[in-house]
Amino acid sequence: MEFDDLKGTSGEWLRGTGPESDIVISSRIRLARNVADFTFPPRADESTRRETEALLKENIQELSTASDLKVIDVNQIDDLDRKFLVERQLISREHAESSGARSACIGALETVSLMINEEDHLRMQVFRSGYALESAWTQINRIDDELEERVSFAFSDEFGYLTSCPTNVGTGMRVSVMLHLPALVLTKEIQKVFQAMHKMNLAVRGLYGEGSQAMGDFYQISNQVTLGRTEEQIIQNVKRVIPDILDYERRARQALIKEDRQRLHDQVSRALGVLSSARQISSEETMEKLSSVRMGINLGLVDDIEISTVNELFMHIQPAHLQKIRGEELESTQRNVVRAAYLRDRLTRPPQN
Amino acid sequence: MEFDDLKGTSGEWLRGTGPESDIVISSRIRLARNVADFTFPPRADESTRRETEALLKENIQELSTASDLKVIDVNQIDDLDRKFLVERQLISREHAESSGARSACIGALETVSLMINEEDHLRMQVFRSGYALESAWTQINRIDDELEERVSFAFSDEFGYLTSCPTNVGTGMRVSVMLHLPALVLTKEIQKVFQAMHKMNLAVRGLYGEGSQAMGDFYQISNQVTLGRTEEQIIQNVKRVIPDILDYERRARQALIKEDRQRLHDQVSRALGVLSSARQISSEETMEKLSSVRMGINLGLVDDIEISTVNELFMHIQPAHLQKIRGEELESTQRNVVRAAYLRDRLTRPPQN
Repeated sequence: MEFDDLKGTSGEWLRGTGPESDIVISSRIRLARNVADFTFPPRADESTRRETEALLKENIQELSTASDLKVIDVNQIDDLDRKFLVERQLISREHAESSGARSACIGALETVSLMINEEDHLRMQVFRSGYALESAWTQINRIDDELEERVSFAFSDEFGYLTSCPTNVGTGMRVSVMLHLPALVLTKEIQKVFQAMHKMNLAVRGLYGEGSQAMGDFYQISNQVTLGRTEEQIIQNVKRVIPDILDYERRARQALIKEDRQRLHDQVSRALGVLSSARQISSEETMEKLSSVRMGINLGLVDDIEISTVNELFMHIQPAHLQKIRGEELESTQRNVVRAAYLRDRLTRPPQN
Repeated sequence: MEFDDLKGTSGEWLRGTGPESDIVISSRIRLARNVADFTFPPRADESTRRETEALLKENIQELSTASDLKVIDVNQIDDLDRKFLVERQLISREHAESSGARSACIGALETVSLMINEEDHLRMQVFRSGYALESAWTQINRIDDELEERVSFAFSDEFGYLTSCPTNVGTGMRVSVMLHLPALVLTKEIQKVFQAMHKMNLAVRGLYGEGSQAMGDFYQISNQVTLGRTEEQIIQNVKRVIPDILDYERRARQALIKEDRQRLHDQVSRALGVLSSARQISSEETMEKLSSVRMGINLGLVDDIEISTVNELFMHIQPAHLQKIRGEELESTQRNVVRAAYLRDRLTRPPQN
């Protein structure tokens, strides 16, 4: 896969299609695995890392359940390319920022990504656009099963799969649903969601996972418990809360409309006005205003912009994407200018004829 | 004159043409006169007011120096029409809000306005677009001379013309220049202008004269002393300070450009973006953003909007103008919606072909 093929797209999972896509951006399932008898990455020396990487790459490339994978040598690509892959959520920040032999095997549609030598030897991820956890689970389970026929994973009869960090032991699974919750943020009811999730042992994170801020009103709901439950139980646990959150966000949107449609329309329309006219704009402000516009489209308050355009912009205005699109390295202030120019170009409405 | 003829225009003096029109909106000279042997308005009973009004109207309509005047009976028109005339600066707020027999004689180009039974029996005003005090003086002086051949004005050899308020005794003249000073406001140097004017016995007021706020970065510089000086001296006194203020504002604009052109361009462009996209907007915010756009046009940062459009919008977005244009009375919140719709309509750029 060439980066040049990627930079004009947004990844299949961010297409903004699929079930409940007015709120659910994407569904993701990740499995953590380690190869038996090899030192786990945090303590492995470089030769062990290389050995593990070679073993996994070889077997991954033979997979019939994921035959379109391209291998990217994360240790060899430059820093900008690594950040680009992080923004696309194809590799984790940790994977990008660590050092030594490591790679990523990425499916052509970007719905599959297998990281080698992340915190664990193998972190497998499957994405779906919209709310589609079963479909993601079916695919990742097949890949996992096929790979396990070829590679012996570190496994304990008592605990299940063994991982570098105890929080992943057992299933090694993280089930995440990325939600767009602008109305709950606007009405400040989002705190109640946090509290409810906390009680149910579910985590709420921002766009880029652990420690990241909830830019653009995106929130990732995921399980915290990986041990003592089956994969299906973990999925069910996440699935149990999602319909309530969707309902809660939709009610909040309708309440905003009902309470003061004009004000909401004004806010959405001004957000689009600023995005279409600014001459310099930070990624934070862009995310915030794109979030408004995205909600506006879903509420029928904006009719001349496609939701797919907005979804794509969320990705393209990120620092590394912007630099890849522009084809040069840019300082933060330059990026603000280039970002504004890119937005004006993408959002300028065609002449009405 | 029909109001319907007025509502689509902005008044000749606000066309934004004339000398120094990047900063000088308009020049205005006003003369206060009272008819000898008639009680002055503040103490006159209604029959005296009517008598004075009839006498002045009759003689004003015979003027050859101002032959295109239409008489508006300010006592008979409704409140909205009065406010409309105030916004156009054709009558004063005091004239609009007082009661009893009173009228206004207005020239077809709106460069001449004679108020009958304001604070004085007669308040004559001549306007010019841009910086043109001599031309205004020549015209008002001719009107005054011709009228004085017909009507005997209250005059004292010791003091000069007598007026209701002692601050106008002598020449009865107020010379005003309306300036657009956005860069001095932005750089906070406007305070220095206030201080300098104060020292020179000149007043600085907002768009609608005494007690009005300086909306849209418009400032009116005018004389305070009317006594013990000739009309020419008063004009010279105002003229002495204007070139320095123009120079000061232009330097501030260039400094803003030099310091951070990108930021200024961003500010101007966002202002236009908001004006073109808002769904509800107050007159204060509109004035503030139009002010930015006006400066942007003069600095070459905006190229697809005419300065005359912006000048006209300053007038048309005022409450009474909006209601006249829309043809119905509107509450404040309704006006904010109608104002936004009007702005979107006027500022939407034509398709580029």
